[in-house]
Amino acid sequence: MDNNQLKQGILEGNIRALSKAITLVESTKPEHRRQAISLINELYDHRKSSIRLGITGIPGVGKSSFIERLGLDIIGQGLKLAVLAIDPSSTKTGGSILGDKTRMEELSRAPEAFIRPSPSSGTLGGVAARTRESMLLCEAAGFDVIIIETVGVGQSETEVINLSDIFIMLAMPGTGDELQGIKRGIMEAADLIVINKADGENMNAAKRAKKQLEIALHLFPASDKGIVPKVKLASALNNIGVNDVWKSLQNTHKELTENGWLENARKAQQAKAFQKLTEISIYEQVMQQLGREMGLEKIKADILRGNINEYAASIEIMNDLKKLLTKL
Amino acid sequence: MDNNQLKQGILEGNIRALSKAITLVESTKPEHRRQAISLINELYDHRKSSIRLGITGIPGVGKSSFIERLGLDIIGQGLKLAVLAIDPSSTKTGGSILGDKTRMEELSRAPEAFIRPSPSSGTLGGVAARTRESMLLCEAAGFDVIIIETVGVGQSETEVINLSDIFIMLAMPGTGDELQGIKRGIMEAADLIVINKADGENMNAAKRAKKQLEIALHLFPASDKGIVPKVKLASALNNIGVNDVWKSLQNTHKELTENGWLENARKAQQAKAFQKLTEISIYEQVMQQLGREMGLEKIKADILRGNINEYAASIEIMNDLKKLLTKL
Repeated sequence: MDNNQLKQGILEGNIRALSKAITLVESTKPEHRRQAISLINELYDHRKSSIRLGITGIPGVGKSSFIERLGLDIIGQGLKLAVLAIDPSSTKTGGSILGDKTRMEELSRAPEAFIRPSPSSGTLGGVAARTRESMLLCEAAGFDVIIIETVGVGQSETEVINLSDIFIMLAMPGTGDELQGIKRGIMEAADLIVINKADGENMNAAKRAKKQLEIALHLFPASDKGIVPKVKLASALNNIGVNDVWKSLQNTHKELTENGWLENARKAQQAKAFQKLTEISIYEQVMQQLGREMGLEKIKADILRGNINEYAASIEIMNDLKKLLTKL
Repeated sequence: MDNNQLKQGILEGNIRALSKAITLVESTKPEHRRQAISLINELYDHRKSSIRLGITGIPGVGKSSFIERLGLDIIGQGLKLAVLAIDPSSTKTGGSILGDKTRMEELSRAPEAFIRPSPSSGTLGGVAARTRESMLLCEAAGFDVIIIETVGVGQSETEVINLSDIFIMLAMPGTGDELQGIKRGIMEAADLIVINKADGENMNAAKRAKKQLEIALHLFPASDKGIVPKVKLASALNNIGVNDVWKSLQNTHKELTENGWLENARKAQQAKAFQKLTEISIYEQVMQQLGREMGLEKIKADILRGNINEYAASIEIMNDLKKLLTKL
């Protein structure tokens, strides 16, 4: 499909067109990048203003069941939901958390829901840039709510925090009064902590943990969002508390819209995305137009032959480029 | 200290000079980057050919005790050891796994050992590039063995895999025949899996797990290293098996040297480092010399004012640059 067909399809909410466009966004080929940038630009002003939710939680905490339950509540309200999942856990096999087809079975069958895993390995712009672009495409396709999900390891969480309006951390009662899934650093960025599996014999421990968490959250410096982080109890399995979470998320989103945080955050994200786009494309453009003149291929070969080390080579390249640009 | 003083100090094995140089490497300021690149270039041919070990393991697996025990064996042999630790776990507070001063207490007091945490947040070249540069500096300071340690979350493991000659994964017996700390994707990249805490009542479970792991490892595609991954039992606490691990690592390193893998891998790393160095410095050079002419600041302001979206802006910038470079 060319960009006209993709644009038309996406604006009609066609899932096949949306999927193809996301695949384009994920490609590292320069011609695909150019096409993707042009497509996003054309769709930019046709986007819905969506609610962007980031959700993290370690395996075992019931993240899939929770997202499914939350998702069913969202689409039950007549809204369209996209779930973008980032999975950095597998490096060599490129496996995905969505490999398991039974995950979110009911939600994945619903026509109002779109679930898409995001491979997280080696691309120029990084996972964050690509996930953001996929999100923009989903908004152009008319999705009202976007959930960005991460398995909760390392860098991916930071990226999800930066991409989402509201960041949700899932935890669960452990042995004693311990909570499982609470991670320092990440917890401080959470706008909402949901203690899942708060049912049956876990209930008392969950309630005690909730109180302690609420006290602990006051010890952290206030975030720039101007809202007080919340702690909620839920049992996705028994469908208890999830709808309350969804109501709370809608209220928080309203607060963030009204206090101006949302607009500022989106602008900052735009500026950051522009910086990243420019970094990469300036490199590509210079390589394409001056790479030969700068003798880049010869220098690379020299490095592999051991004639020059990579730092000396980098210094040489910079001096050459400096001289070339001075002519302008 | 200027580069001459740093160079002199590092070549004399002065730890203060080495620390200062690593701080320079970690800086994001353009003038510091230039100084760092120049320093590494000057030291490049004075480096020792070291053994580079990557070690990962989830919290609780006894990683610190294991590295300390292994480290004491290494320096006991008259060798100099550097431990570089990557910690991506804390995003907001910038906390470090080495914040706990009691970690590796004995090793950190030894004059033959150098232990340095590596902050993992926001820099141009990324953690991998900086850790590699710190490693090159340690080699110039005469270190024989470099251990790159990661807490075992997300991206940092991939980076450690790419930087190390031998990648070691620590696991421990769990309940029943389960092993704790084994992660799909990462496990497939391990050259050596050490089952730590193989002592007392864990012993039988550890032995059974070892057998199962050895069978499982045969199911993975062979790595390009041309060696068979090993599984070893150890108890860092009781100093059992760790010296055997060190002997095995030395043998593996000999194998990798003799079969040519090491030389090829180092060259590939050089080429990759050059690519990264060039990407970043081309961007900086173009910005410095042409940023004004391309009206970059005005475009950024326009994005923040909502006059243009970041994708349209990126397309504009590229067209401007293309025209400018055509004049050359």
